[in-house]
Amino acid sequence: MIIVLKQNTDKKQYDKLAQWLRGMNLSLHESSGMHSTIIGLVGDTSVVDIDLIGAMDIVESVKRIQEPFKAANRKFHPPDTVIETRGAKIGGGNFCIIAGPCSVETEEQICLIAREVKKSGALMLRGGAFKPRTSPYSFQGLGGDGIELLLKARAETGLPIVTEIMDLNQLGMFDDVDVIQVGARNMQNFQMLKELGRIKKPILLKRGLSSTIEEWLMSAEYIMAGGNTDVILCERGIRTFETATRNTLDLSAIPVIKEKSHLPVIIDPSHATGYAKYVESMSIAAAAAGADGLIIEVHNNPAAAWCDGQQSITPEAFHILNEKVCAMRSALESIDTRLASASL
Amino acid sequence: MIIVLKQNTDKKQYDKLAQWLRGMNLSLHESSGMHSTIIGLVGDTSVVDIDLIGAMDIVESVKRIQEPFKAANRKFHPPDTVIETRGAKIGGGNFCIIAGPCSVETEEQICLIAREVKKSGALMLRGGAFKPRTSPYSFQGLGGDGIELLLKARAETGLPIVTEIMDLNQLGMFDDVDVIQVGARNMQNFQMLKELGRIKKPILLKRGLSSTIEEWLMSAEYIMAGGNTDVILCERGIRTFETATRNTLDLSAIPVIKEKSHLPVIIDPSHATGYAKYVESMSIAAAAAGADGLIIEVHNNPAAAWCDGQQSITPEAFHILNEKVCAMRSALESIDTRLASASL
Amino acid sequence: MIIVLKQNTDKKQYDKLAQWLRGMNLSLHESSGMHSTIIGLVGDTSVVDIDLIGAMDIVESVKRIQEPFKAANRKFHPPDTVIETRGAKIGGGNFCIIAGPCSVETEEQICLIAREVKKSGALMLRGGAFKPRTSPYSFQGLGGDGIELLLKARAETGLPIVTEIMDLNQLGMFDDVDVIQVGARNMQNFQMLKELGRIKKPILLKRGLSSTIEEWLMSAEYIMAGGNTDVILCERGIRTFETATRNTLDLSAIPVIKEKSHLPVIIDPSHATGYAKYVESMSIAAAAAGADGLIIEVHNNPAAAWCDGQQSITPEAFHILNEKVCAMRSALESIDTRLASASL
Amino acid sequence: MIIVLKQNTDKKQYDKLAQWLRGMNLSLHESSGMHSTIIGLVGDTSVVDIDLIGAMDIVESVKRIQEPFKAANRKFHPPDTVIETRGAKIGGGNFCIIAGPCSVETEEQICLIAREVKKSGALMLRGGAFKPRTSPYSFQGLGGDGIELLLKARAETGLPIVTEIMDLNQLGMFDDVDVIQVGARNMQNFQMLKELGRIKKPILLKRGLSSTIEEWLMSAEYIMAGGNTDVILCERGIRTFETATRNTLDLSAIPVIKEKSHLPVIIDPSHATGYAKYVESMSIAAAAAGADGLIIEVHNNPAAAWCDGQQSITPEAFHILNEKVCAMRSALESIDTRLASASL
Repeated sequence: MIIVLKQNTDKKQYDKLAQWLRGMNLSLHESSGMHSTIIGLVGDTSVVDIDLIGAMDIVESVKRIQEPFKAANRKFHPPDTVIETRGAKIGGGNFCIIAGPCSVETEEQICLIAREVKKSGALMLRGGAFKPRTSPYSFQGLGGDGIELLLKARAETGLPIVTEIMDLNQLGMFDDVDVIQVGARNMQNFQMLKELGRIKKPILLKRGLSSTIEEWLMSAEYIMAGGNTDVILCERGIRTFETATRNTLDLSAIPVIKEKSHLPVIIDPSHATGYAKYVESMSIAAAAAGADGLIIEVHNNPAAAWCDGQQSITPEAFHILNEKVCAMRSALESIDTRLASASL
Repeated sequence: MIIVLKQNTDKKQYDKLAQWLRGMNLSLHESSGMHSTIIGLVGDTSVVDIDLIGAMDIVESVKRIQEPFKAANRKFHPPDTVIETRGAKIGGGNFCIIAGPCSVETEEQICLIAREVKKSGALMLRGGAFKPRTSPYSFQGLGGDGIELLLKARAETGLPIVTEIMDLNQLGMFDDVDVIQVGARNMQNFQMLKELGRIKKPILLKRGLSSTIEEWLMSAEYIMAGGNTDVILCERGIRTFETATRNTLDLSAIPVIKEKSHLPVIIDPSHATGYAKYVESMSIAAAAAGADGLIIEVHNNPAAAWCDGQQSITPEAFHILNEKVCAMRSALESIDTRLASASL
Repeated sequence: MIIVLKQNTDKKQYDKLAQWLRGMNLSLHESSGMHSTIIGLVGDTSVVDIDLIGAMDIVESVKRIQEPFKAANRKFHPPDTVIETRGAKIGGGNFCIIAGPCSVETEEQICLIAREVKKSGALMLRGGAFKPRTSPYSFQGLGGDGIELLLKARAETGLPIVTEIMDLNQLGMFDDVDVIQVGARNMQNFQMLKELGRIKKPILLKRGLSSTIEEWLMSAEYIMAGGNTDVILCERGIRTFETATRNTLDLSAIPVIKEKSHLPVIIDPSHATGYAKYVESMSIAAAAAGADGLIIEVHNNPAAAWCDGQQSITPEAFHILNEKVCAMRSALESIDTRLASASL
Repeated sequence: MIIVLKQNTDKKQYDKLAQWLRGMNLSLHESSGMHSTIIGLVGDTSVVDIDLIGAMDIVESVKRIQEPFKAANRKFHPPDTVIETRGAKIGGGNFCIIAGPCSVETEEQICLIAREVKKSGALMLRGGAFKPRTSPYSFQGLGGDGIELLLKARAETGLPIVTEIMDLNQLGMFDDVDVIQVGARNMQNFQMLKELGRIKKPILLKRGLSSTIEEWLMSAEYIMAGGNTDVILCERGIRTFETATRNTLDLSAIPVIKEKSHLPVIIDPSHATGYAKYVESMSIAAAAAGADGLIIEVHNNPAAAWCDGQQSITPEAFHILNEKVCAMRSALESIDTRLASASL
């Protein structure tokens, strides 16, 4: 952490600041120039409240050099985290496609789609029981009944299920759910994150619509700080000025996350683009960029879906998508293998 | 609502769509051209799920003409809503300044600040008991104890209190609170909005960091649809590419809200700019633009505040700010009065 | 185009509007409801000034249904445009990598890099002679001398050259240049676009930092309206709130452009991400998403580059990148071929 | 400037870097910790190319502490710059309203509007002769003839004229123009900025649609570095996700500019909001926030304007706007005067 002091700093105030910082086991290195004095802080600065320092009279500005997250930081945990549930693995080279309808509608619907996507290579089943909707007058999901239907589809296909929690009061209904999804709108629902840090289930943490990658990792840190280290990060588009797609899919988040963190990261091209016609190309691109998986909306009859039909692809389209992703991944892997053996 | 059909539309599918729309008491007006057919829907389209229509095979695009909110819409409720609590009024010409520290720290602190801001013109007292913090390692507020201290400050000064709820499980502790604040990160916590729609207390609804004005009004609609029509809207900066201020204060939201809705709208210049030095000018500008009030962070010793001290102003600065806002408002009012009488 | 009239519209004003619109060979279809009257305009609305209509007293709002661009529109020109210069093709299935240093420095440098990138598969050579720099105190490029050096590198390798024009007064120096690049900052320099529409050379048109895809296509339209239809679109990152990368690479622009236009679209991962370490993954992802090519900064000694060294990759890294892109593209092509033959 | 070195830095490379930096008259202060070494650079770092340093192998990151602009910097030029042309002053407490139509249409139109706005308090006349339009099929302005008409309006009213240049080739036609406007799209047309730095006329520099305040000041620096220090900054809305207004007016830019620079800053509420109905409130707010002036579109018959009529106000509305701005400013001034005398 770097602190830049104002010119003509009061000596007493500076001594007070220095003493306080040393009390947190930080050492101070000072560089004095004509226009300003710079203090370099060395030690574990993740515990320092940067706002507090910035508010001080004698401080002109303060900047972090190190990331404020620890548990999620690759520097302190170099190997990839691999998360496993009912045999399905994600991370560390394990590519995992999660597929299913936007919302659970009927037993027939969810079981049919589950069978179809399993046949075509999906390793997990998604489906919304509680649906966050902008309008209070829109369909809000089947709730607990939706979870029951997902469990039936799991019983039939063996696919682990992923579904979204919207409020902590619903947590009791998620006992049999395999992976709990935290939606983009709840990415900074810190109370929820804390509570999910105390349970023993993988959490699929979607990136907030206007959250930086650092904020997203800080939300993962909230969960991990409680003891639950099984966090799957999911990029689903950020809000920009562009309106041709619903949001702007930030695929460069993939190599950034891979560099900064050991957690697996997957991509949701369905919500990001908002249109079925763009899902295939963004899915292949995501896999090519190094994602650990995809979460894709698939519906047997998109035009009759109860929500978000516009962005759902058919089981046939999903089949082709999966085939392309696999072919592309294996083409890249053979090059990586050759390069790795050449460098030995 | 306008539906644009694809070229060479299947007649059967179109009849099915038309029948479904007429079943919702909408009438259809068709315009056929060489390249496309346009259908104008007339009636109450706020109940129509626009996504469902957009997903249909025969539909090229669909656009809303009318706003999707009703209870919050000025068209259906022309006069300004005035909200009153313990004698403090907001809206309909009543200007209300809410002031206080970022977070409640001690009884001395909150009571001292309450006395100071009351003396200088504040009509309500703000103070955080539950604090949303990006880092799990930062100070998270005094919780229920903080609310107790706010009640003491109210007992001493008579100022109604405004404080933020972070999770529905905390609702029981808010029984004696006068105005419940929903933070920017919870603006689309729909479960919370629904629940707050069932109680009888004014809700101060902050705009989400990347929420459009329409989405913000839809969140107000969630509360109002439950029966609680006392919603105070609060603009607190939106996220943009600019980094000179913490967020970008969108003051043009004031005339937009005034046009589209009857609800009062206030401005939070402290969180929006993130720096005490910009608070005065943005406060006067907000009042000049027609805001119904302000919410301002005031701290007796900003450099020692437990959070966000960088953006807190001193009681002395608050005193001058209030004086300027009053002088400016009365200058504008005397012109408006003259113009109004001239046009009779 | 859809025009929504205000309630209780003045009949005379409406007749005047209707007459004016019919004078532009448009036919009007009216839908009257209780709250508003909607007029559907049928015909070639690309010539209608939407602002003029929106300003009229009787008009509540006006929306376009059809795209305002024609020459660039795939609807009116379904087959892909293929652009060829000195044997290098781009578009219509022809994938083209353009590579080279950020700025031309010396004859040795540009010729060395040209030989290296040609050996590894680049089909064109890029290099900046005129450099747009944020600071007047930064290196601004070699100017005309830089173009001379590029011509020497072309003479040696046969690679066609791509370089940026910054002002129309420089146009005389571009007579021997093969492809003229219009930078992001000049995407709406309409005077320049018009002039480039009159010459017979391919134009590489970069997307503006905060330009929508529609605005970008409208800028292509400016060039094409003058008679020069050889426009290569280049996405190079848009400005968002995220700071982990220099800009946010919008790869979903690829399928959007492919749908709306017949022009080739390429990706610049170097400027978009700003870091060499993210270039490979974004390049493969771009090709996977369906881009027609890439433009990549390559420098023999990035740490000693005269500008933007941070984002330049080495010739060795470029060699591997190209190999991966080729392997990935051929894996996808074999699936596409099989699917195409199966559907016969 | 702060340079953070990677762990286990090569000693030789570091010595080379240090020597190079000292060669620019900078002194280095080193702070070594377990995880990283931090170097504080002291001296005039505005000449240092930050990208070059960031690209070096041994550097992890590099951050500026001081602003990269000098001529525009208030630190090196504390008093406000006052710009005067034909008796109209702007800056240093001189408030200046520039008003007129979006585009010059006829002699009658421009002279009529000039008389009206002068009567109501405008000190300069604006009017577009060259119009930047997104579509090549829209009206592009009267060109040189438009400038002639502006000169006639000046001859009649004495108001100095402000009009936009779109390309350097037009510069010859601007000999008699009083203030040359650089539009948002040309804010980073560096060739144009350099050329305008060599002439002796005030330049009204609009902020780019997605330019940070720092980039905007760097563009002013381009002009000032050439010797022309009469730059008027103009905020006209930035591009965000919000669509209720055309752009988002960033009024907080006013106090930020006032802190960082001595140049006058004015606001364009017409282009920023895009709607006449929001112009008055944003104008008063801008003045309240401390702007040095306004530039406002006024048209005698907005519904018949040749461009942007939607955002033009009538002369009557302008008259009231001006009156309110004056009343508000004088109310604030009397408080400031009292406070100033009290603090003596």
